[in-house]
Amino acid sequence: MNIAIAQSGGPTCAINASLIGAFKQGLLSERTDAIFGSINGIEGMIGDELINLKSIIRTNEDMELLRQTPSTMLGSCRYKLPVFKDAPEVYEKILHTLEVHQIKIFLYIGGNDSMDTVVKLSDYLESIGSDIRVIGVPKTIDNDLPITDHTPGFGSAAKYVVATAQEIIRDSSVYSIPSVTIIEIMGRHSGWLAASTCILRANGEEAPHLIYLPETTFSADRFIEDVRREMAKHKAVVVAVSEGVALNTEENGIEDFQSGKEDVFGHKYLSGVGKYLERLVSEKIGCKVRSIELNVMQRCSSHICSKTDIDEAESIGREALRAALDGHTGKMMYFRRVSDVPYAVTIEMTDAVNVANLEKKFPVEWISPEHDQVTDAAISYFLPLIQGEVDIMMRNGMPVHFQRPLQMR
Amino acid sequence: MNIAIAQSGGPTCAINASLIGAFKQGLLSERTDAIFGSINGIEGMIGDELINLKSIIRTNEDMELLRQTPSTMLGSCRYKLPVFKDAPEVYEKILHTLEVHQIKIFLYIGGNDSMDTVVKLSDYLESIGSDIRVIGVPKTIDNDLPITDHTPGFGSAAKYVVATAQEIIRDSSVYSIPSVTIIEIMGRHSGWLAASTCILRANGEEAPHLIYLPETTFSADRFIEDVRREMAKHKAVVVAVSEGVALNTEENGIEDFQSGKEDVFGHKYLSGVGKYLERLVSEKIGCKVRSIELNVMQRCSSHICSKTDIDEAESIGREALRAALDGHTGKMMYFRRVSDVPYAVTIEMTDAVNVANLEKKFPVEWISPEHDQVTDAAISYFLPLIQGEVDIMMRNGMPVHFQRPLQMR
Repeated sequence: MNIAIAQSGGPTCAINASLIGAFKQGLLSERTDAIFGSINGIEGMIGDELINLKSIIRTNEDMELLRQTPSTMLGSCRYKLPVFKDAPEVYEKILHTLEVHQIKIFLYIGGNDSMDTVVKLSDYLESIGSDIRVIGVPKTIDNDLPITDHTPGFGSAAKYVVATAQEIIRDSSVYSIPSVTIIEIMGRHSGWLAASTCILRANGEEAPHLIYLPETTFSADRFIEDVRREMAKHKAVVVAVSEGVALNTEENGIEDFQSGKEDVFGHKYLSGVGKYLERLVSEKIGCKVRSIELNVMQRCSSHICSKTDIDEAESIGREALRAALDGHTGKMMYFRRVSDVPYAVTIEMTDAVNVANLEKKFPVEWISPEHDQVTDAAISYFLPLIQGEVDIMMRNGMPVHFQRPLQMR
Repeated sequence: MNIAIAQSGGPTCAINASLIGAFKQGLLSERTDAIFGSINGIEGMIGDELINLKSIIRTNEDMELLRQTPSTMLGSCRYKLPVFKDAPEVYEKILHTLEVHQIKIFLYIGGNDSMDTVVKLSDYLESIGSDIRVIGVPKTIDNDLPITDHTPGFGSAAKYVVATAQEIIRDSSVYSIPSVTIIEIMGRHSGWLAASTCILRANGEEAPHLIYLPETTFSADRFIEDVRREMAKHKAVVVAVSEGVALNTEENGIEDFQSGKEDVFGHKYLSGVGKYLERLVSEKIGCKVRSIELNVMQRCSSHICSKTDIDEAESIGREALRAALDGHTGKMMYFRRVSDVPYAVTIEMTDAVNVANLEKKFPVEWISPEHDQVTDAAISYFLPLIQGEVDIMMRNGMPVHFQRPLQMR
């Protein structure tokens, strides 16, 4: 039978590894024939923009290169599938694409919004008596999906963030004058990625001296008090702050540090908390201060990806196709952790509805009572996820990326 | 005889390798005894804050760790040595430190401002008939020192910038809508680091589609025209822009994208050109646009440093001590390139006055006539400098850094 794979949401370092996992399993299975890639997520299914993956991924080197190429090889989308009764024609277009290409399995690699698509599409196909199966493969650097122990893409993002935070700590401490350095880290409304900087303590670092997460409320006054307290102890204070930190803008007397616009899923575009805190320190304390936004580098720096993450991403892609071949639909694959040391996970499945549109927050019990640090208990959770380095293929001193066919650029 | 080493200016990935080069040579030479490190550059010489380096760098592993640890292990400063007649007491304090510790050689690792210190201090010592020698070791990610083919620290910065730009290119091209991504790159008033992104073409990348450097004037109107032209050819346009790009603020109708403040050397603090261009694209074109500041990561990301750069930095540190032991003073060591392919450099010396306070610009003949790209001729200059990877020691999935003694933090 023919299968189609699509990638959705924000890029990660591991999303192409999941594609390769499913693709390889498709090559291996006697039950699969053509393997299609849908261009720009579900948009490619609606508009019948498919490519024959076997004509693009042709060699073992191609597969290796894709494993080390960040971002989504097939393109992505932020398209929200409407509910059926509002737009039946969209579902009929997808059905048409599936039927024209005799596709029996659709794998969707994405985050909690993409799982909403898995639920809606699989429900629709079941409701019309179709045997076409839809399986979700999790993916997000935010690590904010329920049920799964962690998400593919997170480990690599954390490895980059932690290594970079450590380098920023070195950089920040060179001058003799007191300074504050604020590192703004992605994660939307969950603090997982910012919290991961706590594992630097496993290597003897004292910084970041302060870590602020969206899971607790944030007070500008208390922040300044915290910074003053740490400045009394350390010449160069380093702060890790999650982009989604819950600023109570009224209480804190600010209005416009966020753009306030919302994307199609109703998510506010988050940005600027680092700059806001920089100005705050400058005004209230008046010392040397710098804010650093890790920006898209934290989701695409595959040159320092986690081997554990990339290997797991490939495995969960493979298992997704197996589950679909076994007749499952409307499910999302997930990791269940069996043990921290030695680290072991199994790959399971759950109804995608248990994940769709839901967010998993960073556990409040791993946040210090003062809401300015992460406790040691979190270290054993994070550590296994960043282990191992991928031996990156280099050419001319630069990592080699898989280059998409010209028609896709 | 006793020697002292100090580090100055902005951090790089290679400045500790130069320290190790001199330190190892000090261990090897029969003519050297104690090796001191001066804390926070020349400030440590003025205030007599020295440490015994042999008590801190104790094992071969310590030396290896320092080679892979970014930033300045001894701390840094931005202190400008006044001319002698304005502040003779400062020179006398330095002389006192030198004499108390019987130091006969002072090595100063830094940029063009630091070479100013080498000139003034060696002139002073000669004027009083002292046989104490002062030698400069170049260092800057900006690559803006005259005489030398390139500066230690630049190759590692370029390797990070290029690898990261390539990842950002991948990240920027995932959605179906047109977009512009602007990468702001350091370099003060010279465009070397931003220009280095042209070598992505050696690996088949078309982007960055536009590269803007401070060596030519910049017109906001022409920039918007350039972007429109590239948008007609590419869905995701990527722009590399040097932080010091020569905005004629009057012509371009803007006033305040730079803070305008000056540091003690009369350098303006440069920042914000990326944000400025982002707003410009947003207003004039109205498409999806993002600006990314590579910030301090471009000077401290030793996890992806250039082996060529680190090895050369160590060599030039070693040769600096040799030159001093041979009786030279008031000199700066530099690289003379003998050949691009195979790559070969020799290490020479020049009077530090030929470098002090001077800037080497990116060659205008390597800039396209339209001032929006770098020509292929620059590729063979840049390529050798980013070759090779250092096998980074890892612990718990993170690079290991040399940790300074507690009294220095």
